[in-house]
Amino acid sequence: MFAPVYLDHNATTPLHAAVREAMLPWLGERYGNASSRHEYGRAARKAIDEARAQVAAAVNAHPTEVIFTSGGSEANNLFIKGAAAVQKPGLVAVSAVEHPCVREPARQLVKSGWRFAEIAVDIEGRIDIPAFARLMADKPKLVSVMLANNETGVLQDIPALAAQVRAGGGWMHCDAVQALGKIPLDFRGLGVHGLSLSAHKIQGPLGAGALIVDKRVELAPLSAGGGQERNLRSGTENVMAIVGFGKACELAAAGIEERARRHGALRERLETGLAQMGAQIFSAAAPRLPNTSFFALAGIDGETLVGKLDRAGFAVASGSACSSANPEPSHTLMAMGVEAGLARAAIRVSLGAGSSEQDIDGFLKTLGENLASLRTLAAVAV
Amino acid sequence: MFAPVYLDHNATTPLHAAVREAMLPWLGERYGNASSRHEYGRAARKAIDEARAQVAAAVNAHPTEVIFTSGGSEANNLFIKGAAAVQKPGLVAVSAVEHPCVREPARQLVKSGWRFAEIAVDIEGRIDIPAFARLMADKPKLVSVMLANNETGVLQDIPALAAQVRAGGGWMHCDAVQALGKIPLDFRGLGVHGLSLSAHKIQGPLGAGALIVDKRVELAPLSAGGGQERNLRSGTENVMAIVGFGKACELAAAGIEERARRHGALRERLETGLAQMGAQIFSAAAPRLPNTSFFALAGIDGETLVGKLDRAGFAVASGSACSSANPEPSHTLMAMGVEAGLARAAIRVSLGAGSSEQDIDGFLKTLGENLASLRTLAAVAV
Repeated sequence: MFAPVYLDHNATTPLHAAVREAMLPWLGERYGNASSRHEYGRAARKAIDEARAQVAAAVNAHPTEVIFTSGGSEANNLFIKGAAAVQKPGLVAVSAVEHPCVREPARQLVKSGWRFAEIAVDIEGRIDIPAFARLMADKPKLVSVMLANNETGVLQDIPALAAQVRAGGGWMHCDAVQALGKIPLDFRGLGVHGLSLSAHKIQGPLGAGALIVDKRVELAPLSAGGGQERNLRSGTENVMAIVGFGKACELAAAGIEERARRHGALRERLETGLAQMGAQIFSAAAPRLPNTSFFALAGIDGETLVGKLDRAGFAVASGSACSSANPEPSHTLMAMGVEAGLARAAIRVSLGAGSSEQDIDGFLKTLGENLASLRTLAAVAV
Repeated sequence: MFAPVYLDHNATTPLHAAVREAMLPWLGERYGNASSRHEYGRAARKAIDEARAQVAAAVNAHPTEVIFTSGGSEANNLFIKGAAAVQKPGLVAVSAVEHPCVREPARQLVKSGWRFAEIAVDIEGRIDIPAFARLMADKPKLVSVMLANNETGVLQDIPALAAQVRAGGGWMHCDAVQALGKIPLDFRGLGVHGLSLSAHKIQGPLGAGALIVDKRVELAPLSAGGGQERNLRSGTENVMAIVGFGKACELAAAGIEERARRHGALRERLETGLAQMGAQIFSAAAPRLPNTSFFALAGIDGETLVGKLDRAGFAVASGSACSSANPEPSHTLMAMGVEAGLARAAIRVSLGAGSSEQDIDGFLKTLGENLASLRTLAAVAV
């Protein structure tokens, strides 16, 4: 297989070798339905409980607050739909830069009589705090704001926002899928009622995620049945993936500082080079995840450039890769007031465990080469 | 690890070696978000498409009719909740022996204005056909009847039932989780609108299942977001598990006749021995899955016996192992009119790939030994 340099870690990550080691027995001699009352079932239950403790420890939560799901999208849907289902309709508010798996379930609550509001962000992609405070006067019952944006990497001041939501008697949810493993996470410190996590963004497996949920929050499940996960997520537990998720959380939490330093330096190298090419770096003035750089070179089509870079040996994203074949310009950039033409030029580089200085230098060199030919093309087209 | 003889394959199964082989690259050098537009993303998409074709081929469906889910529970919930959400409330009817992940979502539709009916079964656990025909006069909009029961293994005449539902203009769903790989499955031949499958019951991995769905059926998704799986199941696809599911389907479909013959002979050997001990074998007169035997020895507590057998080296189930810590007697047996005391004595043996004559003989011998001591205990207790 042709293997370009992978610079798309916000889309998904390769499995960590130690995560693989933890999972492999569950692809071999170990198996069992965690609900079974024999040795196989008990061993599966024990493995899940250990993983639950690992996930809880990584985000300063109690193991009983961890609800395993099939991933981040399900965790986000579980909180938003689940919390709405047990309440009388009211106002639900989500930031204008949420992932579709937060925005869509929230928007769909309108069908059940809820009012829906989007919370505006400034040109850097940060929630406008005075505007947020004004919205709070309307006492939203549900609010969801992501900790770190998947495209720009911008961080929001969740503790401050959550305090306001709580003061108004609402429930605050936070999608922390992109933040986990990149910045320290503290469920208690954030002050939120629900926090969504995903394994495959932190060198864990696809197929596992979690909703960390305050025990005072009542939720209706998305799926009913066998009553697993405190009746919030019926279905035989995916032991293999859950075990991998636990291990990935342990590793991610342990290595945050070193990773942040290393990725921060690599991104600095990248963005210095990008600036010399005349790139506009989105949200450069805002606090961001250290691994993420979202930028545009005016007059270039992002999709086309992603294709050229791929063939030249560099895998990057044009917009969010988490959605299925969506040709629209980035919703995040549009919410930030970026002009559509420039938004269509956007490219995301997201660094990960294997990223190196050589990768950055090679990427910049290749980008420069392609840029020249693409600009010639664009000039001809005009 | 202490490894009892595993006779609980209806709860879950060990991974097939060839399935593991197919999955291993996706725990190593292969990774990628199937929505990404670079080499990694395209490779993941291609692997998913291949698995989709394998699953479709195993059940005589078209690949575009396969919606991958995280498992059977989610597939069942997706059809029932998803079909109800796009219709005006009416009558939903499910058999009295459904798994909780069919019964519960159907029952909960009452909250949205639906009427809920359970379809009675006879003493053998078979749908009463005249009673079913009378129910059809009430024109149910949604009907769900499982192909093979997880506890008794009893098979229902789905084509005949589906024809009646269709004639009344309703949608027919069938939970085929226990049937897949044990009897031939033909989505077209069954005549149903939706068919639920699960990977981990057929030596595939936990974390993958599918809803096979007729393209004329409109469904609302359980989770909204990135729009994966034709917008019916948002969330990054679990490539590793889906690849394993595809391979498991291929293997399961290819080996059905040989497996059915072998398991049938082993079960005959088991039930001959059980009859000699005075066991009552449930649904013995009905068509059943070849691998499943559900029986009771009067005066013995099933839970206690499962514990004793486990310590003596045999892993079997007392009731359905798919539910979390449910101390009630089997819902299936209660629906069949079995007296609660006898239902509490029930034990399920479900055979799988590794099951052998030695396993059966050893199980019968150990059962006989434990029986004597348990009956002494029971006599003392009286």
